[in-house]
Amino acid sequence: MNAQVENAAKEAKAAFRTFANAAPGMRAALLREIAAGIERLGDALIECVHRETALPVARLGGERARTCMQLRLFADVAERNEWIDERIDAAEPARTPPRPRISSRLRPLGPALVFAASNFPLAFSVAGGDTAAALAVGCPVIVKAHPAHPETCAMVASAIHAAVETCALPRGVFALIGDAGIDAGIAAVRHPAIKVAVFTGSQRGGLALWREANQRAEPIPFFAEMGSVNPLFVLPEALTSQSEPIANGLHASMTLGVGQFCTQPGIVFLVDDGAGRAFLERLAALVAATPAGNMLSSVICRNYTQGVVAFAAIGGVRKLAAASAAGEAIPDRAAGAALFAIDVDTFLAQPQLSDELFGPSSLVVLCRSPADFVRCAEALPGQLTATVWAGEHKSGDNEDLLWMLEQKAGRVVFNGFPTGVEVGEATMHGGPFPATTDSRFTSVGTRALLRFVRPVAWQTPAT
Amino acid sequence: MNAQVENAAKEAKAAFRTFANAAPGMRAALLREIAAGIERLGDALIECVHRETALPVARLGGERARTCMQLRLFADVAERNEWIDERIDAAEPARTPPRPRISSRLRPLGPALVFAASNFPLAFSVAGGDTAAALAVGCPVIVKAHPAHPETCAMVASAIHAAVETCALPRGVFALIGDAGIDAGIAAVRHPAIKVAVFTGSQRGGLALWREANQRAEPIPFFAEMGSVNPLFVLPEALTSQSEPIANGLHASMTLGVGQFCTQPGIVFLVDDGAGRAFLERLAALVAATPAGNMLSSVICRNYTQGVVAFAAIGGVRKLAAASAAGEAIPDRAAGAALFAIDVDTFLAQPQLSDELFGPSSLVVLCRSPADFVRCAEALPGQLTATVWAGEHKSGDNEDLLWMLEQKAGRVVFNGFPTGVEVGEATMHGGPFPATTDSRFTSVGTRALLRFVRPVAWQTPAT
Repeated sequence: MNAQVENAAKEAKAAFRTFANAAPGMRAALLREIAAGIERLGDALIECVHRETALPVARLGGERARTCMQLRLFADVAERNEWIDERIDAAEPARTPPRPRISSRLRPLGPALVFAASNFPLAFSVAGGDTAAALAVGCPVIVKAHPAHPETCAMVASAIHAAVETCALPRGVFALIGDAGIDAGIAAVRHPAIKVAVFTGSQRGGLALWREANQRAEPIPFFAEMGSVNPLFVLPEALTSQSEPIANGLHASMTLGVGQFCTQPGIVFLVDDGAGRAFLERLAALVAATPAGNMLSSVICRNYTQGVVAFAAIGGVRKLAAASAAGEAIPDRAAGAALFAIDVDTFLAQPQLSDELFGPSSLVVLCRSPADFVRCAEALPGQLTATVWAGEHKSGDNEDLLWMLEQKAGRVVFNGFPTGVEVGEATMHGGPFPATTDSRFTSVGTRALLRFVRPVAWQTPAT
Repeated sequence: MNAQVENAAKEAKAAFRTFANAAPGMRAALLREIAAGIERLGDALIECVHRETALPVARLGGERARTCMQLRLFADVAERNEWIDERIDAAEPARTPPRPRISSRLRPLGPALVFAASNFPLAFSVAGGDTAAALAVGCPVIVKAHPAHPETCAMVASAIHAAVETCALPRGVFALIGDAGIDAGIAAVRHPAIKVAVFTGSQRGGLALWREANQRAEPIPFFAEMGSVNPLFVLPEALTSQSEPIANGLHASMTLGVGQFCTQPGIVFLVDDGAGRAFLERLAALVAATPAGNMLSSVICRNYTQGVVAFAAIGGVRKLAAASAAGEAIPDRAAGAALFAIDVDTFLAQPQLSDELFGPSSLVVLCRSPADFVRCAEALPGQLTATVWAGEHKSGDNEDLLWMLEQKAGRVVFNGFPTGVEVGEATMHGGPFPATTDSRFTSVGTRALLRFVRPVAWQTPAT
């Protein structure tokens, strides 16, 4: 038994009824107060996150803005109260037998467990989108801190605690489990007071916790977003006039933030013709010249560095470019970008080439024709995103490929790049297994709250 | 490998794209044509179901009407096309960086597997609510026939096949797996072409198949509705003027259809005072005088008869009434109603008393006061329904009990009885585990289609 987990779960359970039944405006006020509290932490917060994660200060300023925007977006959602999806089937007293009145609406599941992600220490962490969505609908939240940014977690948690107090809500509405151990996370998933859990991170970690959730005496919904390789298909017509901007944009997307995004484009499909080879040459030159960057933690960096070595050893894989990792201040976290290539038949024979390698590395699959793109898309596992560069997109073009990509991905990107997840009403950040454990949900955008609610009906007599 | 499953899955996969992209009106036409086809089967269908299930002809006429009503309700839902929940976040070309346009809508998951239930051979079987919901959103459907009514399954399937042909849709849009074996069901859940499965039946069967779905290389959503004991709480104030009608109504609800409903009230909570004892006496007399009835199959009848004997042997359980099973035409399917009682402390000490016993048997738990009701409600596992008889219901009365029942059940019934599930927009037929495998979904009503769909987003450039 983990005392920290036990205490947090007990207080969350005790707070649930008051919080679930709080006025919509009260939950909105809490979310806005959390955003204001995070902003009041000022430069001290950014400095702390930068120290722990090595993420650039400019990026962290943007991430803080996004985090507060998310909290305020969900405050608006809570206040409008439309998410409850109230439905009423009127009574029919004259029917035989009389039809009763039935009303139903969505209600919070109960205390929610959130696993903070490593790569967005603000936007997908203690006060990230998961926490915002769960609080918006009335679920008390327990966050398992990420061991790679413990002080950041504690600082943000202090802002949430203060907001809960300011709003005169029960303190069990929020708790942080600071314990860095895996056992604390497992104990939390197993705790009977927890009624739903969400996770953003590796496939290995996500699946292990999902199995725990399913093995409980009372299984609970467990949503894990586990990343993917985000295939990008470059159709020949896109290269006739846009070869250079696509190569530049792809290079920027694959190396952005030292490649530490779950939407990083890890596989690129090209036709192996003159234009394709010229494109590849340009991309390789850009990758080779990429400045080294510091990764989020030494563990992540070691996994990346070893992963690149292992990748290069797979049959048929050619290394096209490998940027130097030298010149960075933190030696055991410095990583260089890498680019590999393989021919389509060798790719199709080795499914492990579609496993995510977290970091600034991509594999280019050289195809005979766009018909190979459809075969490759069909062979891929579930993805968060799939991208098509198609020149001027006209409806009816490339229908076979687009149909297949809809089957494989939660978001299909036309003439763009997959990194950069916009937060809004239409957002879908999810996808078929193994990108997530349940393709019917998203972890970003207002639809994300649907993971935390269930319909309840009330029936009253016809007369 | 099961050839029937293999063939059905292959054809469903081949049909999926055409069916998913069919015009909403085409799916509506299919559902209406199925309803008309079932009606055209006429008396021959009712006679077949009656022969196989022993359900009374009048009830089967009602169930057919409900089945066709469900199909037409989902036809309207398909035609209106609002279920796609289209959302658009407009582009912002002037933002830095430019914000792309994102639109998203719900799309069908893929071929759906439906397990027919034994107790509604029309409304929860081959052309039941699950099939109607899946077809409405564009999922091809494969139904695993129920071995207790194989000819009924085949007759209804013939009407669906004819409707698919009339609508000029690919024949893979629908298939029936007639194979009675458990292995065929397992093979179907395991088949990679199946992308979602739904089940109505026993907890044992539902959990076994749910585990199969989770153990696939690509786990799929598996929704099982596994029944419950549907607690009914009679508050003392309800007995001052309504003791007789409540006893009559409860008796009718617990013995309706030989108790073969997943919403049968299997546990009744009463205060052990003069009014409570008088109520119990009346209920026991009604149960003792209940005419015997034929159950759906000899297997179900044997489980019920053995279950009643085992129940009577549990410590502290008193048998109050046991109706004769004699006088029915089918000896190995005849069952008599039964009523048991136990005191509250002995009840709370034995959780197995909350397991469902499928058939016309109920347990009365005698409590010291309504405060015991809250303790008992908290001790119960998840339920499809929970009922409160409270005299004139006023907001603010019995808040502790109502809060606890909301945590435990998908539908809370005031001053009514749980049997009779109305089909509409507000319907919630589901509930926390173990009533179902996922409390966020319903298997009846228009919300049932949410089990079969997932959001997909399309992103296009800002400019």
